[in-house]
Amino acid sequence: MPKPTPLSGFPELLPEQRFVEQQVIDTLRRTFELHGFAGIETRAVEPMDQLLSKGETSKEVYVLRRLQAESESADSGMGLHFDLTVPFARYVLEHAGKLEFPFRRYQIQKAWRGERPQEGRYREFTQADIDVVMKDELPFHFDVEVARVMAEALSGLPLPPLRLRVNNRKLIEGFYRGIGAADPARVITIIDKLDKVPVDQVSALLASDAGLDPDQVDKCLRLAEISTTDTSFVDLVRALRVEHELLDTGLEELAAVIDGCSSVRNERFEVEASLSLARGLDYYTGTVFEIYMVGYEFLKSVGGGGRYDALASDGKNTYPGVGISFGISRTLVPLMSRGLLTTDRKVPSVVLVALVDEESRGASDEIATALRAHGVPCEVAAGAQKFGKQIRYA
Amino acid sequence: MPKPTPLSGFPELLPEQRFVEQQVIDTLRRTFELHGFAGIETRAVEPMDQLLSKGETSKEVYVLRRLQAESESADSGMGLHFDLTVPFARYVLEHAGKLEFPFRRYQIQKAWRGERPQEGRYREFTQADIDVVMKDELPFHFDVEVARVMAEALSGLPLPPLRLRVNNRKLIEGFYRGIGAADPARVITIIDKLDKVPVDQVSALLASDAGLDPDQVDKCLRLAEISTTDTSFVDLVRALRVEHELLDTGLEELAAVIDGCSSVRNERFEVEASLSLARGLDYYTGTVFEIYMVGYEFLKSVGGGGRYDALASDGKNTYPGVGISFGISRTLVPLMSRGLLTTDRKVPSVVLVALVDEESRGASDEIATALRAHGVPCEVAAGAQKFGKQIRYA
Repeated sequence: MPKPTPLSGFPELLPEQRFVEQQVIDTLRRTFELHGFAGIETRAVEPMDQLLSKGETSKEVYVLRRLQAESESADSGMGLHFDLTVPFARYVLEHAGKLEFPFRRYQIQKAWRGERPQEGRYREFTQADIDVVMKDELPFHFDVEVARVMAEALSGLPLPPLRLRVNNRKLIEGFYRGIGAADPARVITIIDKLDKVPVDQVSALLASDAGLDPDQVDKCLRLAEISTTDTSFVDLVRALRVEHELLDTGLEELAAVIDGCSSVRNERFEVEASLSLARGLDYYTGTVFEIYMVGYEFLKSVGGGGRYDALASDGKNTYPGVGISFGISRTLVPLMSRGLLTTDRKVPSVVLVALVDEESRGASDEIATALRAHGVPCEVAAGAQKFGKQIRYA
Repeated sequence: MPKPTPLSGFPELLPEQRFVEQQVIDTLRRTFELHGFAGIETRAVEPMDQLLSKGETSKEVYVLRRLQAESESADSGMGLHFDLTVPFARYVLEHAGKLEFPFRRYQIQKAWRGERPQEGRYREFTQADIDVVMKDELPFHFDVEVARVMAEALSGLPLPPLRLRVNNRKLIEGFYRGIGAADPARVITIIDKLDKVPVDQVSALLASDAGLDPDQVDKCLRLAEISTTDTSFVDLVRALRVEHELLDTGLEELAAVIDGCSSVRNERFEVEASLSLARGLDYYTGTVFEIYMVGYEFLKSVGGGGRYDALASDGKNTYPGVGISFGISRTLVPLMSRGLLTTDRKVPSVVLVALVDEESRGASDEIATALRAHGVPCEVAAGAQKFGKQIRYA
């Protein structure tokens, strides 16, 4: 085997980096479990038709083929999951009879996307998701709960400050309906481009593609500009003098999430109502979240989620859910590649038991065993070199 | 989405089963770290040429194709790893400059094989591996160490008794050379069939395919019958009056492993020298291990490993290693499907904080927060139903 080279988009951690990642995972897990979330894992693969029914991600799926399949081109009909929400919805439907609702679950697992790798976007990445699902109807206070639990979990991590941006699909859809937009979904898609495309281009699209008049365009853009860290956004929206029942519900819900997060807000974790936020995935029906790392906004969002009322449905039963996801690789890998987030612990051992000669290895082993019985990770020297050499290795 | 059905060969655990699996993983991890093993993860994929260079497993690999690849039939040139040893050897070569040797690592991860699923053999499965590698030369006492560490880790698990079977490639190769076999590798391959094929068929193959005379065949079969729980196998082999230098080394090494494991042997963990053991993979060069679950021998081995002196080599440097692997899914899934290994903890919460009405949710939340500050996992009732209903859910 010639010396292997790294595979683009598949970041791999050195032992001391994995140690940090493992601590991050342990911290998240501890907080999730304190809040009653049960850990599950789903299989890495899903049937292709289920992966593809979620629309726009179809480009990014890795399809599996058995090397010795009957026909050379025969796919297995399965692909690697590209997130943990779609597999979770399938898991709930498949195992519904054996689950207790409300079902709170966390899932810390790898996902895969065949897209072009760039910093913060990998072909293989680990993420941590929490979701709550219920049968038939899911009370709104769970939207607040998942935001608070994730906020609490993330506040315990050794990361740069994070910012949780929150919006509500009902709010924006109600607003667009209130100004008389014929196709609110189209408006949402165009407004979602605001962080990539100059504002005058967005204006032009709103006029040409969504058929809005200049006054409607102006109102849309003024709504998107609103961003507050408290519930003062409600008055700012009201000042635009748009009326719609759905808008009222959305305002109320968003205010409740922002209010509910006040106790977890601190200088390392900001929460803001951000009315330009839409999130691409069309299964969201109410609250939407995105997480940004302050000073690393060029990575785009490092987490997100929202309320999905109809994602998990088998026609007979519907299991509405709300959840939020955090990109572990997306945050840790860029920080590690900058030399931040280091540790001096290359190995778990804190003691190296010296070795006088090979004959006395048994005696050194006994000392190590005694240390381990007291919970001290340790190892015995590999060989009976001069003590100076053994100390250098230690 | 219609109600989804399970995917054959991809076992998925319910929350209470995952809780057990997670405890098993935590126990293994704790023991491995106490012994100075560092946790790593490797990416799920490897270049196909590296996966295929390991011979006989080529049938079982899942190849990846990007759905929107330029050509419809274009594979990515990558496949999912089928074990953790081949990726680890690649990891060592790729990162050698940044690792400290001896490098002790554990790796608890999923692997995939496209083979026909049967009980205990899955298309997706989790396994736990420990290995030690060194540069140029790896002292023999590490063969003893990995066996002891794995034995200690497994003894802590809530499983049926386990049996670690040990043999040594040098011992059997030396023996076959000593009796004058022209092609010892061929003899090893045939002897390896003993647990699947009747003994007279094996005899016939040894004569026809390996060209052995009746006396040589007899000696091979008598060697394969030897199985002892102490070092008495040495005298039994000597009684067959075969002489070869490699046989002497093998006997010495195997005796050292059996001796070295005496302290971890107990009624729930047996260790035996088993001279019929060969293990298919041809990268093993000395010690070989297999683990069986007593009473579940029909599952075949639930773990294995051995010494590989040349697996990790880039032509310039060689990193000999020794390791042992334990099949977590292979043991847990069959036990769980029999209703063994249960827990009554469907969720992490041990307390349900009752709710008087939605207005006082804040007060209930505060009680929950206080409990969590004391490390008590808990949740607040989903709705303000009658207390009887809330208690029933709890």
